[in-house]
Amino acid sequence: MSYQIAVLGASGYTGAELVRLIATHPYMAIAALSADRKAGMAMAEVFPFLRHLDLPRLARIEDIDFAKIDLCFCALPHGTTQAVIAGLPRTLKIVDLSADFRLRDPAEYAKWYGQPHTQPALQAEAVYGLTEFYRAEIAGARLVAGTGCNAATGQFALRPLIAKGVIDLDDILIDLKAGVSGAGRSLKENLLHAELSGGTHTYAAGGKHRHLGEFDQEFSRVAGRPVRVQFTPHLLPMNRGILATVYVKGDPAAVHQTLTEAYAAEPFLRVLPFGDLPSTRDIAGSNFCHIGVIGDRLPGRAVVVAVLDNLNKGSSGQALQNANLMLDIEETTGLMLAPIFP
Amino acid sequence: MSYQIAVLGASGYTGAELVRLIATHPYMAIAALSADRKAGMAMAEVFPFLRHLDLPRLARIEDIDFAKIDLCFCALPHGTTQAVIAGLPRTLKIVDLSADFRLRDPAEYAKWYGQPHTQPALQAEAVYGLTEFYRAEIAGARLVAGTGCNAATGQFALRPLIAKGVIDLDDILIDLKAGVSGAGRSLKENLLHAELSGGTHTYAAGGKHRHLGEFDQEFSRVAGRPVRVQFTPHLLPMNRGILATVYVKGDPAAVHQTLTEAYAAEPFLRVLPFGDLPSTRDIAGSNFCHIGVIGDRLPGRAVVVAVLDNLNKGSSGQALQNANLMLDIEETTGLMLAPIFP
Amino acid sequence: MSYQIAVLGASGYTGAELVRLIATHPYMAIAALSADRKAGMAMAEVFPFLRHLDLPRLARIEDIDFAKIDLCFCALPHGTTQAVIAGLPRTLKIVDLSADFRLRDPAEYAKWYGQPHTQPALQAEAVYGLTEFYRAEIAGARLVAGTGCNAATGQFALRPLIAKGVIDLDDILIDLKAGVSGAGRSLKENLLHAELSGGTHTYAAGGKHRHLGEFDQEFSRVAGRPVRVQFTPHLLPMNRGILATVYVKGDPAAVHQTLTEAYAAEPFLRVLPFGDLPSTRDIAGSNFCHIGVIGDRLPGRAVVVAVLDNLNKGSSGQALQNANLMLDIEETTGLMLAPIFP
Amino acid sequence: MSYQIAVLGASGYTGAELVRLIATHPYMAIAALSADRKAGMAMAEVFPFLRHLDLPRLARIEDIDFAKIDLCFCALPHGTTQAVIAGLPRTLKIVDLSADFRLRDPAEYAKWYGQPHTQPALQAEAVYGLTEFYRAEIAGARLVAGTGCNAATGQFALRPLIAKGVIDLDDILIDLKAGVSGAGRSLKENLLHAELSGGTHTYAAGGKHRHLGEFDQEFSRVAGRPVRVQFTPHLLPMNRGILATVYVKGDPAAVHQTLTEAYAAEPFLRVLPFGDLPSTRDIAGSNFCHIGVIGDRLPGRAVVVAVLDNLNKGSSGQALQNANLMLDIEETTGLMLAPIFP
Repeated sequence: MSYQIAVLGASGYTGAELVRLIATHPYMAIAALSADRKAGMAMAEVFPFLRHLDLPRLARIEDIDFAKIDLCFCALPHGTTQAVIAGLPRTLKIVDLSADFRLRDPAEYAKWYGQPHTQPALQAEAVYGLTEFYRAEIAGARLVAGTGCNAATGQFALRPLIAKGVIDLDDILIDLKAGVSGAGRSLKENLLHAELSGGTHTYAAGGKHRHLGEFDQEFSRVAGRPVRVQFTPHLLPMNRGILATVYVKGDPAAVHQTLTEAYAAEPFLRVLPFGDLPSTRDIAGSNFCHIGVIGDRLPGRAVVVAVLDNLNKGSSGQALQNANLMLDIEETTGLMLAPIFP
Repeated sequence: MSYQIAVLGASGYTGAELVRLIATHPYMAIAALSADRKAGMAMAEVFPFLRHLDLPRLARIEDIDFAKIDLCFCALPHGTTQAVIAGLPRTLKIVDLSADFRLRDPAEYAKWYGQPHTQPALQAEAVYGLTEFYRAEIAGARLVAGTGCNAATGQFALRPLIAKGVIDLDDILIDLKAGVSGAGRSLKENLLHAELSGGTHTYAAGGKHRHLGEFDQEFSRVAGRPVRVQFTPHLLPMNRGILATVYVKGDPAAVHQTLTEAYAAEPFLRVLPFGDLPSTRDIAGSNFCHIGVIGDRLPGRAVVVAVLDNLNKGSSGQALQNANLMLDIEETTGLMLAPIFP
Repeated sequence: MSYQIAVLGASGYTGAELVRLIATHPYMAIAALSADRKAGMAMAEVFPFLRHLDLPRLARIEDIDFAKIDLCFCALPHGTTQAVIAGLPRTLKIVDLSADFRLRDPAEYAKWYGQPHTQPALQAEAVYGLTEFYRAEIAGARLVAGTGCNAATGQFALRPLIAKGVIDLDDILIDLKAGVSGAGRSLKENLLHAELSGGTHTYAAGGKHRHLGEFDQEFSRVAGRPVRVQFTPHLLPMNRGILATVYVKGDPAAVHQTLTEAYAAEPFLRVLPFGDLPSTRDIAGSNFCHIGVIGDRLPGRAVVVAVLDNLNKGSSGQALQNANLMLDIEETTGLMLAPIFP
Repeated sequence: MSYQIAVLGASGYTGAELVRLIATHPYMAIAALSADRKAGMAMAEVFPFLRHLDLPRLARIEDIDFAKIDLCFCALPHGTTQAVIAGLPRTLKIVDLSADFRLRDPAEYAKWYGQPHTQPALQAEAVYGLTEFYRAEIAGARLVAGTGCNAATGQFALRPLIAKGVIDLDDILIDLKAGVSGAGRSLKENLLHAELSGGTHTYAAGGKHRHLGEFDQEFSRVAGRPVRVQFTPHLLPMNRGILATVYVKGDPAAVHQTLTEAYAAEPFLRVLPFGDLPSTRDIAGSNFCHIGVIGDRLPGRAVVVAVLDNLNKGSSGQALQNANLMLDIEETTGLMLAPIFP
């Protein structure tokens, strides 16, 4: 009685993470895997860590019989995703992990991704997949758009604060530290071990990172007025994990209380006691997000630190959580795996 | 209807790994955790990565009510373990992860561990816990002694070869590369990030590593004559994983075939196609052991490479596998979690 | 014709870095090394990477004949340093790397270091050792106090901006990422490879880091009014390097121009073209500090990113640069070594 | 009074390491740098860690005026190197870092590199550049062929033992652990931080690594009879460093004494006291090679462990050492830089 699942783009890190998670999910079975350039290969050749699983061979998308599929995860690059999803049967439930359906406004998409959106109808239909804030819409959706991993981290730290009005909306700063798997399995010099290990640097600084489009959209929606945050990401020599240090102006105790209350019933969002700050080491490999709050010596300033695993809660874990909702499976199913430490 | 489980020594890495694994085991519940020096603390204070679990507080061993416990994992240092286990109720099933009951011959224990064994009766009772080779004994045992992590890796590579007589018993060499968590949570200069990262060195070289006691005992037993291997461990800048490069003299094809046949039905031991060699990255966080065989350009020489996760298959995963057998639970229960990659 | 040099506290990382640098300095010779608990040992036993050097054995401080020493580097822990330096001959030039003489105001010392200062006269005599800003005083000083490594990084990014009034003095935020060698050769769980590698977390957050005392002192002095910055350090899985992301309000072009002009003649402070941001990988092992400036999409905000090697420019390189000045040696002597990459 | 130096292939790691070393060499000046695909760029754009140096722009080889060059380092890929060197003026001294001129026998080159050698006359002229064993020839040579980095490490451990006949020539085994910079700045999945960090695996196992050609050539030459060693390299998550664990049959004391005597006068080859084994951390960034010897519990077996920095003593440091000899500069000039630790 398993739902039949397809994963498109299974040769990338988020695709592999989906397979890893689905492998121990009691109500899902992997029925199809795609990877155009590696079609015909066994998944174990592409990802030997999945060697113990009995998986279908990688296929081209056009060779997959979607009639047998209940839900399709789409982990393809942005841009190409639009056409692929447009070509899938309308009866198929889809969780997309690309950036193609995250921004409601086609003009914003064009601005941040440098090309016009070709499927505005699909974009209008898509539900923004930040589970904890869009549960009802996600449960009823056919197409859910996974969030950016950095965008998820920042929103977990900030949405309740913006909603409750406990912070100054005009002076929010996110200094983010990201692990390298967020860049995908891409062959770039700065992602080589020899160049990345043992050091750190910024990337997409100066207000250029595309996840700002999500921040703008979501924070403005929550606030009911335009909100523009400052956001500087850094690349760190770690494989999994994001740590967002979020600087806000507001009463630290109120900030902590607001987050604590907002997430009291959330299984995956854990607010630490006031003054404790989290480490990425404590969430690696899991769907958990740990959030801490501390005040500064300067009165009226608070620091919120949120950590999550970019491949899991930031991408594939979130996608699975959304898929559970869409298939009317208990939301945490298959996702309560503990982090790996050390 | 869960079995009630105690973990003694829960503030170390193998203790924490046990908790991580048991947390998603369908038939086990953690009823007690001990850590003498940290008694009274919450497990989440000692290991924040377990923050999401509802766990008993750390207690002193003498404060645990063992009448309610079905099975006890003992992850204490060698030496102290003997007295602790001697003091536990005889009705309790015990899986020990220390070195105290691995060596059948008290003289060998004294030789390798530098002190006489104080519980020879318990030592005589204990079953050596290399699951795949002692299943029947383990299933019926009250006290099972977990193997050394390096010892397990070498034995998976070699036992079938020794048993079948396909290699020269007098010229076996194990060059082993070990991740740092095998050294435990010990405060030593050479385990600091600043001193270990980015480099490698040998340790306990020259035939001094204590796991040689296990190799001697087990290989001689299998061969029916004394077998003494050469063994050089190296410490690597990685947290989890052991890679054993095992050099043998024998026909490479026969070596490969022997291992393939021996492990054909094993759920956790995976022999790769001839010529493929495994990576520790592909088993990290899991109970799997990948084994590869290649021939050398020099005829009559084969190289066997075995990898496993020292904290999991090499310690806590093995312990849980044994506990499943002892409690008549299907052996793989709770252990089919995929490795984490990347 | 070499100056005779003593290094007190030679068994720590900054002591070893001093020895490494002095080893190729044409006008200095190491005449004495101290390490109380390791007295009697050869330096090569404590730091085998210095095996190729012909060095004096480690001695207790009281066994060193300071009459033969021209200049003494003191790399001892704060607190104990005060008494040691008070006991040294008044004729000796001293470069101190501890925190004991960085703060001019004894009340500030007591506040940040939790104990009263016992040598206020020495404290009054000491010159703050941020070379590029105190050259004349350092050249004439007997006792120079090395800066904190984080404090140096932040000051290189900010002092000219504060002096020129191009930024808002009431809204300066330093989000700092530090390599682990800054914590010294200390045996702490969170500095173990198993716990630190592959992850990141904050430390001394919330306005508690002691280097804030230096920021307060120096920035207020430069501004001629109290300046209080916000400062959040993070520990990264890298051995050497600090990256300070400094958020200021002011015109980005003016910020860049101010720094460029201020450092135009500085051999070790390199301001990158506007919009380029530096990486710690490009300064590791060297005395260089690279500084970049970028504007944000939010008008009136600039980000200054400064990187340096905490053990070199942040500690021992700075100390040697100061010693050169004190001995009337050309300032860059022995310090133009290129960084190591990769 | 500086020699004018050209570095061809300056956009790779060995090219950059040459520039780093030459930058502090008192008698050499960099007059030309080539990198065909990056011609026109500043070196600081390709390697920002060299930003502080005043260097010529990268040029195409054909645009370099070799009339002004005294010595040329050639750090180009094997295969293409042959034609380039054939086209250089006969008056130019050349130190080649590629594999093209390491093997004296063209048939061996064709066998190991899969293509015929196109410049057999140059190959016949080239001197094998293992400095410590070919000093006289190198000093008089026009063309010196740098050794493989693995080949150098193994030879330092073994040549005196083979020459003196203290070990069994038919049972030599080299298990080698190599840092990733040895693979160059190549864009391959297995060199990505996400795939390499935190794990290890073999490569070119089974007698297929090309440096075996050098071992065969040199060891047979030393022995006066064919010698074929077994050699298994492993890739480690470290950037610089090779550790060769060399297993030999012979008397350990004799092995140690032979190496100690052979290298007693060598400035860069350091034999440790018997029983001490070296770490790659202690030579990183330097031209030193540390060698240790230990006996095994099995009589008649010794383990020799040699470590060096693949980019320095294994490539560019060796090249500079050879260049010093060729230009009649004292051999250690510019090479006594201490390793970097931590």
